[in-house]
Amino acid sequence: MTQTIEADRAQRPAVERKRLVLRSEIETELDLILNRHSRSAQAYGPEFTQLWALIARHLRGGKLLRPVLMLETYDAINRETQASSGNLVSSDDAENTAALVPRAEVVRVAAAIEMLHYAFLLHDDVIDGDTLRRGHSNLIGDLANQTSAEHAACRATHWASTGGILAGDLLLSAVHQIFARVSVPADMRIQLLDLLEHTIIETTAGEFVDVGLGDGVITPDLSTVLAMTTQKTACYSFEMPLRAAAILAGAPEYVEGALSTIGSHLGLAYQLQDDVLSTFGDAEIHGKDAFSDLREGKQTAIICFARMTSAWPSIEPMFGDPELSAEKATQIRDLLSRCGAEKFVLGLIGEQLTAFYEVLADGAGSAKIPAEVRVVLLDLVSRIEGRQS
Amino acid sequence: MTQTIEADRAQRPAVERKRLVLRSEIETELDLILNRHSRSAQAYGPEFTQLWALIARHLRGGKLLRPVLMLETYDAINRETQASSGNLVSSDDAENTAALVPRAEVVRVAAAIEMLHYAFLLHDDVIDGDTLRRGHSNLIGDLANQTSAEHAACRATHWASTGGILAGDLLLSAVHQIFARVSVPADMRIQLLDLLEHTIIETTAGEFVDVGLGDGVITPDLSTVLAMTTQKTACYSFEMPLRAAAILAGAPEYVEGALSTIGSHLGLAYQLQDDVLSTFGDAEIHGKDAFSDLREGKQTAIICFARMTSAWPSIEPMFGDPELSAEKATQIRDLLSRCGAEKFVLGLIGEQLTAFYEVLADGAGSAKIPAEVRVVLLDLVSRIEGRQS
Repeated sequence: MTQTIEADRAQRPAVERKRLVLRSEIETELDLILNRHSRSAQAYGPEFTQLWALIARHLRGGKLLRPVLMLETYDAINRETQASSGNLVSSDDAENTAALVPRAEVVRVAAAIEMLHYAFLLHDDVIDGDTLRRGHSNLIGDLANQTSAEHAACRATHWASTGGILAGDLLLSAVHQIFARVSVPADMRIQLLDLLEHTIIETTAGEFVDVGLGDGVITPDLSTVLAMTTQKTACYSFEMPLRAAAILAGAPEYVEGALSTIGSHLGLAYQLQDDVLSTFGDAEIHGKDAFSDLREGKQTAIICFARMTSAWPSIEPMFGDPELSAEKATQIRDLLSRCGAEKFVLGLIGEQLTAFYEVLADGAGSAKIPAEVRVVLLDLVSRIEGRQS
Repeated sequence: MTQTIEADRAQRPAVERKRLVLRSEIETELDLILNRHSRSAQAYGPEFTQLWALIARHLRGGKLLRPVLMLETYDAINRETQASSGNLVSSDDAENTAALVPRAEVVRVAAAIEMLHYAFLLHDDVIDGDTLRRGHSNLIGDLANQTSAEHAACRATHWASTGGILAGDLLLSAVHQIFARVSVPADMRIQLLDLLEHTIIETTAGEFVDVGLGDGVITPDLSTVLAMTTQKTACYSFEMPLRAAAILAGAPEYVEGALSTIGSHLGLAYQLQDDVLSTFGDAEIHGKDAFSDLREGKQTAIICFARMTSAWPSIEPMFGDPELSAEKATQIRDLLSRCGAEKFVLGLIGEQLTAFYEVLADGAGSAKIPAEVRVVLLDLVSRIEGRQS
């Protein structure tokens, strides 16, 4: 198996080059969608026009990780189908020769996946009262800043969070409209709608539990925290793009099933890695406020483990204090490291990655994950394993 | 014309009887939809299960005005089509003989219209910080009450409003899923999806302006307030049910157009009537807190008119005071009445009703609104004209 992985890894630079092209396809499609909405918003006055302008600005600032993952998985499945059927065509556009679905439809679904991500972020920010994301003002912060010069701060904040709720609603609706109208065979459209429904229910359930943990309404045990993490992050960020790719490429059911399991493992590994970096990593590289998880009292797997150790009585009085000093935060960090919580969560990440490699090795003959898709997945896992930010 | 109206009105008791049957059809469908969601929620733990139980309880408590209006309009169009084609059939179910679309699909769209109404209410209540609706605890209030016994009030409130945001998202998604899957010819499904998209954009735009008026971010002039009212209330409560009926019954385009215009007039008249009743009506009959609009500082057409009169300097210092005494509120009410604001808004309502009767009288021969649909509309307008609560 090691030899195959090494061979796959050698192809990675080509993947990087293709990724730039995919990103540009998605950006073009997002612009088309956003321009259409911005034009129709003008009928409703300057405030609604401004709301769509802010949606467009912030939506276009994302890294497009999810739609790019979808498109590169989709293209990999198609290349494989084409290669295995011995299809030799003279078309310049090798990606499209085996496709069942027009390229424009596939790219539109990819754009919708980015829009869904941003809809979730918006409502998450409203719920958390956040006006910053990665150090910059978010849509809510922008709305509040534009307003607060002339109005009382509390009114500006209320107006801004209203904008956040309504912008999320508009995007959630726009995502469904894209899925509902996608020009593919009827049974494929139903599969996509099923996937969208499942994703929204699962992500919403995860968000509700996450907020319940933060508010102290739900008891933070490890299994609850891990299930919440899979639901809130892995489902829409990893499983959904991979499964959408399989559906649109008409891949066999076992490929969609394997990709769903893989998405769940990699998504959980990714979020656990994020928790580790937030707590133990270099804040300057990671880009998050150092110690923000400790100040917020975020119930992570790290904290769930620490709670079961003798270090907890020393940690508890300081944990979740919004005014926590850097000195005390460093003290908690050292306690978390020494009590074994860091090592424990690194172990959990390792388990998820092992489970991923097992799914990748599963199956035989025609029931294997196609080689081209393996390249994409191994590139993805290498980025998670080597992640510093 | 008066004779026709009298003849139409004589049929009203039959309309009332049919309405009970329609209500039961919609309730059965809502139960099916909610049971499916409640079952699938159980996979996500007790809190998410509880959230769906609350959604079901509160959604099922509505008066079903919108879906009933849709179904009775739909049935009226179909009866007319049948009568004009001289269709004589032996079926027991006379409603269905001229139908293009299976009854189950029509009822499901009607149920979705009620779900959309409740999704809007939920986000509206989150935005307004309301935990009561018509004197009873709403979903947010129930969530807060269940939690506050064991937890700090601010945490219970945060958890409860999070539940309100997420419940609205789940319903908004469920509505789109119903429209996207409705089993009708493809071009009819696209018409329904267009109607849903238009309705959500227009209602959201109206809500954003309404909150901006309340927060003092948008200048309250009469034309802004009237446009906002049409967008926020008339569009989804009147235009949408009427247009959905026309689309599903395959009515000619001029009927859908006339129903859209009628919905806009009646919706605006309904909301202006609501403003008049809230300010000048009998609070015990109306069911709203007396003077709540005055205490909230709600920017209605009444207030817009008063602002242009010499009474405003006396009203302004008291208007929007959350602690306003009953005595001072009565004083404002008398000032609003004496300055002509009540009469002015009653005049606006009269204008909208006149415009409605004009659309009803418009057209000739086959381009007229069908007689059976006129019965439904005249019944609707009589309820708006005679409204006391």
